[in-house]
Amino acid sequence: MPKVSEDHLAARRSQILDGARSCFAAHGYDGATVRRLEEATGLSRGAIFHHFRDKDALFLALAHEDASRMADVAAEQGLVQVMRDMLAHPEQFDWLGTRLEIARRLRTDAEFRNGWSQRSAELTEATVQRLERQKAAGRLRDDVPTDVLLGYLDLVLDGLIARIASGHTSDNLSAVLDLVEASVRRQH
Amino acid sequence: MPKVSEDHLAARRSQILDGARSCFAAHGYDGATVRRLEEATGLSRGAIFHHFRDKDALFLALAHEDASRMADVAAEQGLVQVMRDMLAHPEQFDWLGTRLEIARRLRTDAEFRNGWSQRSAELTEATVQRLERQKAAGRLRDDVPTDVLLGYLDLVLDGLIARIASGHTSDNLSAVLDLVEASVRRQH
Repeated sequence: MPKVSEDHLAARRSQILDGARSCFAAHGYDGATVRRLEEATGLSRGAIFHHFRDKDALFLALAHEDASRMADVAAEQGLVQVMRDMLAHPEQFDWLGTRLEIARRLRTDAEFRNGWSQRSAELTEATVQRLERQKAAGRLRDDVPTDVLLGYLDLVLDGLIARIASGHTSDNLSAVLDLVEASVRRQH
Repeated sequence: MPKVSEDHLAARRSQILDGARSCFAAHGYDGATVRRLEEATGLSRGAIFHHFRDKDALFLALAHEDASRMADVAAEQGLVQVMRDMLAHPEQFDWLGTRLEIARRLRTDAEFRNGWSQRSAELTEATVQRLERQKAAGRLRDDVPTDVLLGYLDLVLDGLIARIASGHTSDNLSAVLDLVEASVRRQH
């Protein structure tokens, strides 16, 4: 395939994802109808579903895009920094409320759950590697297994997403994240 | 009002709440239609909305009932024990998935948000009092303000609710809660 055409495809794909992100943020998963997705992306349904099989595929692509970005930060600066970034720019994560809406489907729809788990594999991997490095460097507490530390940080991240989705970030969450960070560090 | 009639009203109210809880758990907030609420409660819409003004009022009454029960446990044994109970019986908290679905409304509907905050005031109060007592007894860390400890436990609770709602409780969450508990305790 010639280069120009690949660039065009990538640009189109990116245009669809950006539009879909705003559309999900504004209307939620069920509310993001095909008509609204057309308006938000400025493209026809034919064009949209040429690039993405269906609304689920769009949703999972967005989740994957987020997880990828988060994985880059997690690899360098850890998962708590990912949370600090979310807290600093909650408006960029509005669409994550959608993630909460789909909780029931995650419980009952195995195929969807599978796609969802895959999207987060990269972030998990980056976080585990960073935790192992920090542990080897003596900066992390060594009395708790790495998988428990990972489970802990993941649980706090889920809490933060729920909080951002419902607009409750005005409290003392920055100090809370300090506490979270301190509690995985080696105690002195 | 004669006693028998008060008993009857309380029983009817309880019947409606139990049915509504299953209905929300099975179908979500939007999916819990009036027809389904009638089926789940075994009562007519007339009877249901004689006791509760509308679906929001039903939902907030359920949230209040939960918060009240949690407050009893939190007052005696702390908020981490509330989470351990949820983890031990996730099926009793299925309906909380609904709480996630309403995140967008919490962000945008001030009246609804207000009703929602009131429902949790009792739980917050019970948790704060217990934290203060533990701090006075020297069992709690004293290098972090109580409001930050409260915000921390609340954030983890929100994460746990998100996890239960999406059916992901099979991991090492019990060990994670040990870590959470240890991190608010006084360090030795």
